[in-house]
Amino acid sequence: MNPQAVNSRRFFLKGAVAAAVTAPAAKSAQAAVSPARSLAEPFFGKHQAGIASPAPKHTYFIAFDMLSTKRDDLIRLLKVWTAAAADMTQTAEQFERQADPRQAPQTSGAAVGLSQAGLTLTFGFGPSLFDKNGVDRFGLSAQRPEALVELPRFAGDQLVPERCGGDLSVQVCANDPQVVEYAVRRMAKLANGIAVMRWAQTGFNGSFKPSETPRNQMGFKDGTINVSAKEPQSMNDFVWVGQEGPAWLRGGSYMVIRPIRISMEHWDEMTLAFQEETVGRHKASGAPIGKTKEFDSLDLERKDKDGNLITSDNSHAALSAPENNGGAQILRRAFNYDNGITRVAERWPPWRQVVTFDAGLLFQCYQKDPRTGFNRIFSKMAQIDMLNQFTTHVGSGVFACPAGALPGEFIGQTLF
Amino acid sequence: MNPQAVNSRRFFLKGAVAAAVTAPAAKSAQAAVSPARSLAEPFFGKHQAGIASPAPKHTYFIAFDMLSTKRDDLIRLLKVWTAAAADMTQTAEQFERQADPRQAPQTSGAAVGLSQAGLTLTFGFGPSLFDKNGVDRFGLSAQRPEALVELPRFAGDQLVPERCGGDLSVQVCANDPQVVEYAVRRMAKLANGIAVMRWAQTGFNGSFKPSETPRNQMGFKDGTINVSAKEPQSMNDFVWVGQEGPAWLRGGSYMVIRPIRISMEHWDEMTLAFQEETVGRHKASGAPIGKTKEFDSLDLERKDKDGNLITSDNSHAALSAPENNGGAQILRRAFNYDNGITRVAERWPPWRQVVTFDAGLLFQCYQKDPRTGFNRIFSKMAQIDMLNQFTTHVGSGVFACPAGALPGEFIGQTLF
Repeated sequence: MNPQAVNSRRFFLKGAVAAAVTAPAAKSAQAAVSPARSLAEPFFGKHQAGIASPAPKHTYFIAFDMLSTKRDDLIRLLKVWTAAAADMTQTAEQFERQADPRQAPQTSGAAVGLSQAGLTLTFGFGPSLFDKNGVDRFGLSAQRPEALVELPRFAGDQLVPERCGGDLSVQVCANDPQVVEYAVRRMAKLANGIAVMRWAQTGFNGSFKPSETPRNQMGFKDGTINVSAKEPQSMNDFVWVGQEGPAWLRGGSYMVIRPIRISMEHWDEMTLAFQEETVGRHKASGAPIGKTKEFDSLDLERKDKDGNLITSDNSHAALSAPENNGGAQILRRAFNYDNGITRVAERWPPWRQVVTFDAGLLFQCYQKDPRTGFNRIFSKMAQIDMLNQFTTHVGSGVFACPAGALPGEFIGQTLF
Repeated sequence: MNPQAVNSRRFFLKGAVAAAVTAPAAKSAQAAVSPARSLAEPFFGKHQAGIASPAPKHTYFIAFDMLSTKRDDLIRLLKVWTAAAADMTQTAEQFERQADPRQAPQTSGAAVGLSQAGLTLTFGFGPSLFDKNGVDRFGLSAQRPEALVELPRFAGDQLVPERCGGDLSVQVCANDPQVVEYAVRRMAKLANGIAVMRWAQTGFNGSFKPSETPRNQMGFKDGTINVSAKEPQSMNDFVWVGQEGPAWLRGGSYMVIRPIRISMEHWDEMTLAFQEETVGRHKASGAPIGKTKEFDSLDLERKDKDGNLITSDNSHAALSAPENNGGAQILRRAFNYDNGITRVAERWPPWRQVVTFDAGLLFQCYQKDPRTGFNRIFSKMAQIDMLNQFTTHVGSGVFACPAGALPGEFIGQTLF
C-alpha cells in the first residue's frame, strides 16, 4: 500500500476497518483545495510527527480511557486512528460524496476550505494501559517499559483527578484552531464505544518569528535552553528511546504533560527586577542576569561584590540548568493555556476566595526516560523554585509515545 | 491631544489617571517592532472598533461587575481602559523602560515581538449598570435606554448564572491569541479593585479566505445572510443606534452574546441529508435546498411534487430569514468556542451521564434595538428550530455599546 492511497479520504468511505489496510481508492477529483505541500507535515516515518517539529500555534491534548477491555478493540482503534491521522495530515478536508446516504459523514466539514495548516497527531500509551490497578486488560503488562513509571508526587502538586492520567493520549497540533478541532472531532468519533475522553486541554502560542524563542504568558522567553531537534545526536541522547528500551518503543519517546496554572494577576503586580530575579534571566533579552545576549552562558557561579550569587540558586533558570541536574535535558514543547476564569481560593496573601484566570502553561516535554528527564529536573525545582510562588501544577500525565508508523502499519503495531 | 500621544505606551508610565487626559509623552525610540500599519485597526472614530469589521481569528469576551459603587471609579475605569485600548491597538507591545523600578510593568511583556494582529477592544454597558435590583449605584438610571431590556426567557434556555449578565463588557479580538491575552490581562489589571470579572469566554474562527463565508463547527457556512457592514444604509437601518435612541448611545449599538453549546457528538452521527434539512441549506455550497449557489434566494414557498415545502419551515434557514421576521436583520459576528470536555447529562436519547465537548458557538450580534433584532428573530426559533435538537443556550448577555471615542475622549463619556 502506498502513502497516496492511505492518505485518501475515500479510503474511509467503506466504513469497515478491514478497508483500512486493504482497500485504497482513487483520490477524489473534486478536491476543493490544493494546499501547498509545505502545509502538510509528514505523517509516516521513523518517529511520530509532532515531537521534533517546533510547537505550532494551536494544540488540543486529549487523554482517553479504554471503555472496552478487548485487545482487538484497542488494535482496531489504533488502526483507524492511524489511518485517519495519515489522511487528515496529508490531505485538506474535502466535502464527502457519500456512497451511502444512510451513513453520517466521516468528518465534520468544518475544515472544508482550509489547508492542513501543519496538522500533526501524536499518540501515546499511559501506564494504565499496561496495568490498571493490577489488572492486565489487554495482555500488555509484560511489555510495560521499566521507564514508564507513574510520576511521583512532587512538592506543591495540587493535581485534580479530572486533569490526570489516561490509557491513551492523542495530541492534535496545527496552525489553525479550526483544523485542530475538526481532527479532534474525528478522533473522538472513531473512539466512540471503544474509548472515552478522560481529560482535555487546549493550548496556543503567539506568532513569534521562527528564528526567535517565543515568549510565554509571563512575558519571558521560554525555551532558551532546550534540546535542539535539529541535532540528531542530542535527540538520540535525550529524547528518542534507543537500545535501552523495549523493541516496540525504540524511535519513540516518553511524554510528560502538566497543565501548570499561573497566578497571572499576582505576577503582573511584581516589579521587573523581582520577575527577573525569579526567572534568573532578563525579561527583554532573555539573557542571564548581568549579561546581554539570550544565549550567553548562565555562569551560575558568578558573584557580586558582596559575594552573593548573581543568578539566585533558587531561580528558575538555575534550577533547570543541565549543570545543576547532572547534565539532564528534556525536549520542551510547550503551549500556553487559558480556560477563562474560575472562582478559586488564592494561594497568595491575603488568602481569599476570588475570581482568577484559569490560565498558564500547558507544559509538555519529551525524553528518553522520565526518571532521568522530567522527574530528575523537576524534583528539586518543585521544592525551591522561586517561580513556585506563582505556579501550581494542577494536572499530570505520562505517556510512552511509540515510534512512527510506515505506510501500511499502525501506530504502536510492534507492541502487539 | 493628538492620537499619536494617546497611543504612546509611555503615556501610562505616570500611573495617575490624570495623566490619561493631560500628559502625553514622546513615543519610545526603542520600539522593537514596526508593524505594518495594516495590522492596526483604527481605535478612535465615530463607531467603536470590533463591530463592523469582520470577526478575526480569536476573541476573548469578559463581562465585569463593578465592585465600587462610586460614579468616579466607573469614570476612572472607562478612562484608563480607553487609553490602554487606544495604546495597544495602535502600537505593538514594547518592552518598558520603567521610570520607577518599584512599580510593576504596565503590561505582561507576553506580546513583545508580536504585531497588534488587528487587535480591537469593544466596550458595553449591561442593564445592571443602570439599575441593579432597583438600586441606581452610579446615578445613571434616568439614562437607561428603553431598548436596553433584559432578554426574556426563551424556550429551551438552560442559562447558568456564571455565564450571564454583567455591568460592563469588554471584548478583545485579534488574529493572534497571545495578543488577545496580553490585552485581556491589561484590562483585568486596570480594573483591579474597581471591577471584577464575572464571566468570560474565548472564541476562534478558522483561516477562511476573506472572500468566503466561514464554516462553523457544524461544518456549514455561517453568516450567508447577514447585514453587510460595507453598506452604510444597512448598518444605519439595522445596527447603529440613531435618533430613536438616547443621545449618548447614537452611533453605538446593542450587542447580544450567547454561548450556545452544540452537541457535536450527536451532530456528527447525523446523515448529510438530515443535517441539510435541519439547516435548510446544502453543506458543501451553502446554497438553499435544491439550489446551487450560496447566495441564491431562499424562495421559501417552493414545494416539491407532493406539495411539501422544499425548505422545511422549521429549518434554521427558514426561521432566521428576514422574510419570516418582518424584515428584521442583525449583524452577526460569531466565533466558535471550545472549553474542552465536561461530564454532563445528555439531552438526547438515550439520556445518560457522559463526557462531551463543552463546545459550540459563541453567538454574538449587534442591532439597533434588541427587541426588534435578536429577541424578535430568536423567539420563534427558540420554539421550533430543528437545530435546537443539537443546541443549548447556556449563557446570555445584552450590552449597550456606546459610540466610538475621539482623541481626548473616553468610551461612554457622553453618558456622564
